[in-house]
Amino acid sequence: RINEQRLWDTLMEMGEIGGTEKGGCNRLAGTDLDKQARDLFVSWCEACGCTVEVDKIGNIFARRPGINNDLPAVGTGSHLDTQPTGGKFDGVFGVLSGVEVLRTLHENKIETPTAMEFSVWTNEEGSRFQPAMQGSGTYVGRFDLAAELNKTDVNGIRLGDELERIGYLGDMELGSRHMGAFFEAHIEQGPILEDEKKAIGIVRLGQGIRWYNIEVVGRPSHSGTTPMHLRKDAMLAASAIVTEMNNIAHRHENGLGTVGYMDVWPNSRNTIPGKVTFSADLRNPRPDVLLTMHEELEAFCEKVAKEHNLDVNLDHFWYFAPVEFNASDDVKAATEKLGYSHMDIYAGAGHDACYMADLVPTGMIFTPCLNGISHNEAEYSSPEECAAGANVLLHTMLEASKR
Amino acid sequence: RINEQRLWDTLMEMGEIGGTEKGGCNRLAGTDLDKQARDLFVSWCEACGCTVEVDKIGNIFARRPGINNDLPAVGTGSHLDTQPTGGKFDGVFGVLSGVEVLRTLHENKIETPTAMEFSVWTNEEGSRFQPAMQGSGTYVGRFDLAAELNKTDVNGIRLGDELERIGYLGDMELGSRHMGAFFEAHIEQGPILEDEKKAIGIVRLGQGIRWYNIEVVGRPSHSGTTPMHLRKDAMLAASAIVTEMNNIAHRHENGLGTVGYMDVWPNSRNTIPGKVTFSADLRNPRPDVLLTMHEELEAFCEKVAKEHNLDVNLDHFWYFAPVEFNASDDVKAATEKLGYSHMDIYAGAGHDACYMADLVPTGMIFTPCLNGISHNEAEYSSPEECAAGANVLLHTMLEASKR
Ligand SMILES: NC(=O)NCCC(=O)O
Ligand SMILES: NC(=O)NCCC(=O)O
Repeated sequence: RINEQRLWDTLMEMGEIGGTEKGGCNRLAGTDLDKQARDLFVSWCEACGCTVEVDKIGNIFARRPGINNDLPAVGTGSHLDTQPTGGKFDGVFGVLSGVEVLRTLHENKIETPTAMEFSVWTNEEGSRFQPAMQGSGTYVGRFDLAAELNKTDVNGIRLGDELERIGYLGDMELGSRHMGAFFEAHIEQGPILEDEKKAIGIVRLGQGIRWYNIEVVGRPSHSGTTPMHLRKDAMLAASAIVTEMNNIAHRHENGLGTVGYMDVWPNSRNTIPGKVTFSADLRNPRPDVLLTMHEELEAFCEKVAKEHNLDVNLDHFWYFAPVEFNASDDVKAATEKLGYSHMDIYAGAGHDACYMADLVPTGMIFTPCLNGISHNEAEYSSPEECAAGANVLLHTMLEASKR
Repeated sequence: RINEQRLWDTLMEMGEIGGTEKGGCNRLAGTDLDKQARDLFVSWCEACGCTVEVDKIGNIFARRPGINNDLPAVGTGSHLDTQPTGGKFDGVFGVLSGVEVLRTLHENKIETPTAMEFSVWTNEEGSRFQPAMQGSGTYVGRFDLAAELNKTDVNGIRLGDELERIGYLGDMELGSRHMGAFFEAHIEQGPILEDEKKAIGIVRLGQGIRWYNIEVVGRPSHSGTTPMHLRKDAMLAASAIVTEMNNIAHRHENGLGTVGYMDVWPNSRNTIPGKVTFSADLRNPRPDVLLTMHEELEAFCEKVAKEHNLDVNLDHFWYFAPVEFNASDDVKAATEKLGYSHMDIYAGAGHDACYMADLVPTGMIFTPCLNGISHNEAEYSSPEECAAGANVLLHTMLEASKR
């Protein structure tokens, strides 16, 4: 069994890096705070005898040798970057559950049949740079390395430059770790486990995601002298699309639709906006339904362009197809062995494990979080809830290492 | 008659300060560019023998003495600040028509019965600092000086500090000029004169304006894991209000409604916005209608707050009541004497003359502008159109000086 108090203290210590007044965490990918968090992770792993390597997109891998190091390792990992209004648990809990597993093995001098690998993936959040799960997606070959390093934040700063600056642009080849299975522990980020009073969610599926950048190009003009019928109001057209995102979501079972980001130009109160740029995020566990939602958004954007007599450019830059986790039964077996209550569940958010499932048998362990709230400074998971997840991770990894 | 080519050259020279690639002008109030424009105006006035004074809110007054300097002067003026996507004419045309009047008097050694005053008013646009017509409104006593100097831009920079920094925080008392009448020339900024093929608009009324800051406070949470019915989506609620602003405008004759500014927090694509702050601008020439529009907006914000289960704070920080210009007939007489085609019109935008009308008989002269477009880099008025306006200004001021 892992050490509940030590896991908790580790979570709280990490949460101080970028910690906010309201008890949350603001630690965007590639920032100085990200560097501090990574450095701390590396120091903890090295203290337990791991060797640490960094790949070309900044993912970190810490390896604890096993009895037979020719066999593929069992891996775990998650991310240390957060949302601007993030909590102390999203991603971090997965990484530090790994550290807790490592420490438990280390202090008990447990020799595992295979090596164990503990990883931190670059920019999972997709907040500062897009898309999300950028490090894992690039590692497994879904994205082109050069293109991803060239991605810029809203201030035009390149991801590649930031990784170099903080000392985490490594030279290890992508996809080159010798791993045989991958498990990720994560807070659920939704309300279901709490509602159902279950300690552990056996994640069967990661739902599909479609991300868009939408640009509405109208014509800036005077708010006091331009008659309503002569306007090309980019803000008004954008608002129609925001409202429709909500309608699309409601029309489909389990549909979600969100506009989280918006930038207005020239953003002056007595000038009708000439350009509004915003994000759109559509999700559904069923790929056919998500496709219909996508088509509805496309059609609506065309309609808005015609009705408002302006241009609507829809850039659908990321499609993440629903993914099934094929090592879920290993998670279930460990959960039952430990006697925790559990249920099957699907992941509403994307996770690094979703991309790792491209390469190796993969499973995810969910734990409850207070009021189902995440991407919010109030995000919270109790010490016992965290400990349960880390225990399941430990025993899932130990079992997998035997095979 | 004024010198058409000289007026045009002056406009083009001033337009270079903050000039944009697309031929517009971006010269926000209180910036270094505002300082350069003011310095140029002052140097031109001094070259024609004027004495220049600056008041406590940064308004500039250049005085050309007359025959009897105990009589109240005849004034003209407008503003040199622009929108971020402004043109070379809005405001500037009025100021430089004044300079052209001054030069015409100077080179012809015309002695006028009273002194003539040429002014530049601080922050007329209301883009960087609010409200609009801040300099003239403070001069006539509508606003409190200390409160206005304390106003900050989106970066928290105080107007008072910026005026001091650029050397235009004067010590002249507000409202202390000895003026007997005020006339402002301005481009129409709308499509009516062009449509009606008239050279001059005799401005009878400035329409009413109500300005608001609206803050929608929801709850940030995860776009992939928060079910639609558990959301408090500040963006969705804000969009409903943007759409309603348009509906309110359409429900009332001559109604206008605009959301030009919006700021989203935390502005991350996979976090449901927790707070959206935006502007609202309602206008109507009839005060009763504008009041109804205001009440409709208030009621709608309350409704949205209830329906979306979040807070909507409506800060109605500026009401500008419609104003009648009581020296319009002087403008009409000069226009007819000069033989220009003309029509009565009302001003859709606020102007410094609207506040000067509190103190002295005031009139405004409108000239056409291409496609009725303003607050846009494509704003344009031809040399002949500008010359007509300046000629009417010259003769209106000369007549007023005789009385
Ligand atoms: N776990 C998590 O919040 N991932 C961010 C990517 C997403 O938006 O789902
Ligand atoms: N003339 C002008 O554009 N004034 C700005 C104030 C307003 O919004 O009407």
